[in-house]
Amino acid sequence: MPYQAPVKDMLFVMNELADLAAVNALPGNEDATPDTAEAVLEENAKFCSNVVAPLNNPADKEPSYWHDGQVTTSKGFKEAFKAFAEAGWQGVQHPVEFGGQGLPKLLATPCIEMLNSSNVSFALCPLLTDGAIEALLTAGSDEQKATYLENLVSGKWTGTMNLTEPQAGSDLAAVRSRAVPQGDGTYKIFGTKIFITYGEHDMAENIIHLVLARTPDAPPGVKGISLFIVPKFLVNADGSLGARNDAHCVSIEHKLGIKASPTAVLQFGDHGGAIGTLVGEENRGLEYMFIMMNAARFGVGLQGIGVAERSYQRAVAFAKDRVQSRDLAGSAGPVSIIHHPDVRRMLMSMRSQIEAARALAYVGAGLSDIAHTHPDAAVRAANLATYEFLVPLIKGWSTEMAQDVTRDGVQVHGGMGFIEETGAAQHYRDVKILTIYEGTTAIQANDLVGRKTVRDGGAVAKAIIAQIRATEAQLAAQGGAEFQAIAKHLAAGSKDMEAVVDYVVANMKSDIKGVFAGSVLYLKLAGIVVAGWQMARAALIAKQKLDANEGDASFYQAKIVTARFFADHILSQSSGLRSAIVEGSAGVLALTEDQF
Amino acid sequence: MPYQAPVKDMLFVMNELADLAAVNALPGNEDATPDTAEAVLEENAKFCSNVVAPLNNPADKEPSYWHDGQVTTSKGFKEAFKAFAEAGWQGVQHPVEFGGQGLPKLLATPCIEMLNSSNVSFALCPLLTDGAIEALLTAGSDEQKATYLENLVSGKWTGTMNLTEPQAGSDLAAVRSRAVPQGDGTYKIFGTKIFITYGEHDMAENIIHLVLARTPDAPPGVKGISLFIVPKFLVNADGSLGARNDAHCVSIEHKLGIKASPTAVLQFGDHGGAIGTLVGEENRGLEYMFIMMNAARFGVGLQGIGVAERSYQRAVAFAKDRVQSRDLAGSAGPVSIIHHPDVRRMLMSMRSQIEAARALAYVGAGLSDIAHTHPDAAVRAANLATYEFLVPLIKGWSTEMAQDVTRDGVQVHGGMGFIEETGAAQHYRDVKILTIYEGTTAIQANDLVGRKTVRDGGAVAKAIIAQIRATEAQLAAQGGAEFQAIAKHLAAGSKDMEAVVDYVVANMKSDIKGVFAGSVLYLKLAGIVVAGWQMARAALIAKQKLDANEGDASFYQAKIVTARFFADHILSQSSGLRSAIVEGSAGVLALTEDQF
Repeated sequence: MPYQAPVKDMLFVMNELADLAAVNALPGNEDATPDTAEAVLEENAKFCSNVVAPLNNPADKEPSYWHDGQVTTSKGFKEAFKAFAEAGWQGVQHPVEFGGQGLPKLLATPCIEMLNSSNVSFALCPLLTDGAIEALLTAGSDEQKATYLENLVSGKWTGTMNLTEPQAGSDLAAVRSRAVPQGDGTYKIFGTKIFITYGEHDMAENIIHLVLARTPDAPPGVKGISLFIVPKFLVNADGSLGARNDAHCVSIEHKLGIKASPTAVLQFGDHGGAIGTLVGEENRGLEYMFIMMNAARFGVGLQGIGVAERSYQRAVAFAKDRVQSRDLAGSAGPVSIIHHPDVRRMLMSMRSQIEAARALAYVGAGLSDIAHTHPDAAVRAANLATYEFLVPLIKGWSTEMAQDVTRDGVQVHGGMGFIEETGAAQHYRDVKILTIYEGTTAIQANDLVGRKTVRDGGAVAKAIIAQIRATEAQLAAQGGAEFQAIAKHLAAGSKDMEAVVDYVVANMKSDIKGVFAGSVLYLKLAGIVVAGWQMARAALIAKQKLDANEGDASFYQAKIVTARFFADHILSQSSGLRSAIVEGSAGVLALTEDQF
Repeated sequence: MPYQAPVKDMLFVMNELADLAAVNALPGNEDATPDTAEAVLEENAKFCSNVVAPLNNPADKEPSYWHDGQVTTSKGFKEAFKAFAEAGWQGVQHPVEFGGQGLPKLLATPCIEMLNSSNVSFALCPLLTDGAIEALLTAGSDEQKATYLENLVSGKWTGTMNLTEPQAGSDLAAVRSRAVPQGDGTYKIFGTKIFITYGEHDMAENIIHLVLARTPDAPPGVKGISLFIVPKFLVNADGSLGARNDAHCVSIEHKLGIKASPTAVLQFGDHGGAIGTLVGEENRGLEYMFIMMNAARFGVGLQGIGVAERSYQRAVAFAKDRVQSRDLAGSAGPVSIIHHPDVRRMLMSMRSQIEAARALAYVGAGLSDIAHTHPDAAVRAANLATYEFLVPLIKGWSTEMAQDVTRDGVQVHGGMGFIEETGAAQHYRDVKILTIYEGTTAIQANDLVGRKTVRDGGAVAKAIIAQIRATEAQLAAQGGAEFQAIAKHLAAGSKDMEAVVDYVVANMKSDIKGVFAGSVLYLKLAGIVVAGWQMARAALIAKQKLDANEGDASFYQAKIVTARFFADHILSQSSGLRSAIVEGSAGVLALTEDQF
């Protein structure tokens, strides 16, 4: 089924909710006008729909495969990635200095969503490369930047992120890979890394591995981890490719989903040692890796939104096409199933959560742009703090949401949904990784509780709640059942969120396990409240446009209905979440290990 | 990973919640003593764990396959089914008259759960055969019973259920298959049936297809459908197998899960006509098929419980084994992940929902037994009405629950969960069909709203709520935080359910689409309230046992904690569901088709 990029909603969110004009007004963002944004989105939509989306389902059936250390990617991937690179899509948000287009993150964000809607397995390669570029831009030496960045930004080479080892998944303190200094500024790297996305493939001339390892005298735990660049092929002084490095793919995984994305086991140093160079300073590897990780976490949130959107489009098309049973309110013959209330409920649930998550992520991107380029340091700091609060929600909530959405996406199809040929099941399989990699939902929730809420005593959370209250006041001033419903549920939601923030801050020291027993529920609560707030803002703007007779009335009417659905069906879950968080920890923790 | 049947919990539920003693006291059930029950369960557990469970994961990797009209089932299935039949497991609940063991449904129920935990693909074959037996027992002629029942009950032959056609999934009014009378009491059947579970296989000598079709002068719609027996091989007067019938498997489906269960496309009559005989009277086929369907719906609910239990056991084993990160409250080295609060929350969520669904289903089985064998007609009728109210919850809620549980089952494993070798992903794939076949969750919800709630003005629902209120009074009389929490959430839940029942009954005529917009949510609400009630009853009994120093204190303590978790985390969702049902229909229905 073809993919139709939701460019209208994307532009609405960018312009009206994420304030593209404000981003455009910042120094260095002069090119990012609304017109440019529209042109870029249209062009990207065309590329994604025509080139990348058609490869998605065939690649699921014929995944990338390993033979004798080489990985052959699924049919068409190599050519599509070449076209992607040549069109400059890898460089959208990267500096002009290294060949990128230097556009803000807000503009790159819909492009990344579209690529993930089209083909999440394919999109992982640029996503990891984006992370490698971010890490090198922030922590790389001038020589490293000169050696690697231009080819990464152009898509000639790709990047990877090597954290996980068999004994060290979420727990990076357990990393054992070793880096032995050679006295010439290089290190020899030894160790096994697993779950390395695009750790080996045939789509680029070189693969730049960013690898966590310990130097000989490093302290134990996370404070003794350093970050190294270990290219697949060493790079000569003139920039040409040199010897094959001692970093080899020994196998790839057989997975539930994202089957076309090769997930590699990499052996470093089995034949004398893989040559690497240190990024930044020794023992600060985790800090640098977090730069890459935070970019990647935002990107994984977009994967959730992207796959959910594709699943929704497929379900809508099926529901309009499939004729089955009479209309409940009519007596004529059978109708398309979109007339049946529960099918509609599922479609609205999918739609409203996708639109809410999109608004949340794009608003986050705009905050990140302001945080990076605003001339006023205080404005930068305030926007950065809000952005960082949102990242675990964008990653954690959007990917959990995507599991619900793709499940409904199968369900709408009935029996046909269970047949692999239909395509709905692939999305259900593909999304299951999104709540796991780049930090599980629980890891996002740890971040939300610890670094993002308790550390500042709930200040940023409260500042967001204060902004939500301002929106509530605007909602209350509107007439009509829709706005009353939205106002009611948003007010209840923000109150529930406030109570939970207070509970988390107050109990972290005295009852740390009790607080973390509800951490994922807090993430979900904050996710629905902050995303629901964006939907409420969207409804208010839609009302203004309708009152002013501006633009596409049908689009704005639908936006108000969708915001109302989100309030009635999703925001209404907040009281149950609050109660489970605040009162529900004893039941989580009471059993002994033997009682399980 | 080996399967350990939860025999202790099963016996607790059978004896304490489902009142095995009352069932045992009924005429014809004299053999169903608690001791017999325990012996049967232990024996069945051994068979399932040793013979059937080990085939589950290998069969997922090497599914049943079709070649030239024949289906070869996965390795070991043929031998395992032979052993299953020879041990008499197919006949547990079927009449002694036809070679069965004549035991009550309450005793067969845990056996079916265990078989599904072991291998849901395998278990489908006996499940469909059970349905065929029920239909023939109720509606078959003496000759048909004599011809087919003994061999079905013994497992020598198997049964199928042929409803679905390409244009007729949930909508049986659209069935087109034709039955042409031959003047000799037989009919020739023509048509295509799809999604026929075990429609062709190599595990039995004959396959007895029960097929819906229309006679030439049948009225349109569901009132013109008749039910026919169409055996794969015709049966001679002496009971030996005769000619191959004109019912052929032209392909099997490539599916998301239950890959070892062959899902057949059957062509009837492509070579002159498949010979069939009418079951019961013409045009009453749907009624007879519903006998089969209702038995199968209950069985599919058990499939949800069974697969969820297996997923839970796998997650617990992994969580105890996998060492990762420090204990939040301690400063020592890394611990097994079962120490981490969110892992525990997921395990408790899985455990509490499985135990609640098991209690709901077994209580239903007990009611069904009383409804079928009690000497007093009024008692039979009352129990039947309650049982029939529970069936859509047992099917609908337990299978939706299983989706949540198996998703958490993957999540607990982290990255390993996404790797197919681990086995957790298979459960996540397998369960997705359970909310679809034998009537989607929406179809169950239609049944709950229409036949089970509105038809009697909510009388049965209210009678159940009155019983819940009695339990609430007992809870309120207990001390302690656990019972306070259970009492609070059960009272809120039953109040929410009552409000929704009133809303459904009051608005069915004036706002039918509005009512059905919340039908699945009503099913979920009723599911958690009625299952939560069973958990509350279980906690009260556990408390009595503890107070009396009877039995396994650790088991009873865990039961109280688990009931409390269910109240705090699952029952607490009732207010959100109520609000979405009662206030949320406008948002479901407002968009035009074009706005999607």
